[in-house]
Amino acid sequence: MEFSSKLLENAVYEMSQLPGIGKRTALRLVLHLLKQPKEQTSRLADALVGLKNKVKFCKSCHNISDTELCEICSNPRRDESIVCVVEDIRDVMAIENTSQFKGLYHVLGGKISPMEGVGPQDLTIKPLVDKAKEGKIKELVFALSSTMEGDTTNFYIYKQLEDLDIKTSTIARGIAVGDELEYADEVTLGRSILNRIPFENSLKA
Amino acid sequence: MEFSSKLLENAVYEMSQLPGIGKRTALRLVLHLLKQPKEQTSRLADALVGLKNKVKFCKSCHNISDTELCEICSNPRRDESIVCVVEDIRDVMAIENTSQFKGLYHVLGGKISPMEGVGPQDLTIKPLVDKAKEGKIKELVFALSSTMEGDTTNFYIYKQLEDLDIKTSTIARGIAVGDELEYADEVTLGRSILNRIPFENSLKA
Repeated sequence: MEFSSKLLENAVYEMSQLPGIGKRTALRLVLHLLKQPKEQTSRLADALVGLKNKVKFCKSCHNISDTELCEICSNPRRDESIVCVVEDIRDVMAIENTSQFKGLYHVLGGKISPMEGVGPQDLTIKPLVDKAKEGKIKELVFALSSTMEGDTTNFYIYKQLEDLDIKTSTIARGIAVGDELEYADEVTLGRSILNRIPFENSLKA
Repeated sequence: MEFSSKLLENAVYEMSQLPGIGKRTALRLVLHLLKQPKEQTSRLADALVGLKNKVKFCKSCHNISDTELCEICSNPRRDESIVCVVEDIRDVMAIENTSQFKGLYHVLGGKISPMEGVGPQDLTIKPLVDKAKEGKIKELVFALSSTMEGDTTNFYIYKQLEDLDIKTSTIARGIAVGDELEYADEVTLGRSILNRIPFENSLKA
């Protein structure tokens, strides 16, 4: 792509460094900003730089927060004996949206993935184990992606906590609500038969 | 969507103001930036603000340029008697990539679209007519989108130039190279029959 302006080329290049944004999309976005009032661009720039410079992570659950302790961790009505382990803050938002979980969270910041060079020391596993050793946690709910990396991470944490008296569980895997059996893959279907639940339980939610 | 941080919410909101970027994508992009070194965010912010503050438009063709007169307009090897009228700078880039056009451009900055409140006075039509009256232009090539708005704009400019001795042409509409006739729409196919060209001409490009 040949640009008529270095400034434009530079802006498009920086924009195209974002994931899923190619050169063409970047050009479209940058030209859109050019047509908008100047304030929109400076608001976007300030918001991004401001976030990056001032962002804080909750010292207990490692979720993004504006305060030392996030709103969830500092809420006295949440049950601190049950902690849900998630990969990143998007998962916290997703689970919060269901209104089905009243405990606290722990954000790992990723999954163990040797292929991508992510080891246990790159995640917040140690703070989680330390927190567990304090004895307040009774149950740990693993809510990681149902992939090889997710399962590895679950197992690694599980092993670290073996000596402690903590119940561990994992969110149910099975047929998604509204899905047709016909189109479900065999592994999911197989597991959903092995892990079948009493019918009365399915009437609750 | 509930955010655990106002800073994050603000950054996601500003990002989602860009066209084609919804809240979810905005969140993904912002969280990606958070994981990257600080410099990446500041480079992106600087590039956008810098472009917006320092951008210049070529005083002749209205293309984005770092100089008063853009590289194309100031190139003595380009034929200034033939001017290609395009909608925006992306079209200049697209036509330049073909290496088939050796004249100059004129960037309108949009199309006449009453539905979107864009009238002739919002585009660079007057400068184009003034340029045409100077008498240097011999041919005007309309290269706007083949839509109702594009055709309206073509016709409006054509009417403005009626009294001048300027040849006007429009880029060929027809079956795209590599396309199967079976899948072409009727209007395109009908027009491509009406506007058929001598077979020898098709051998040139």
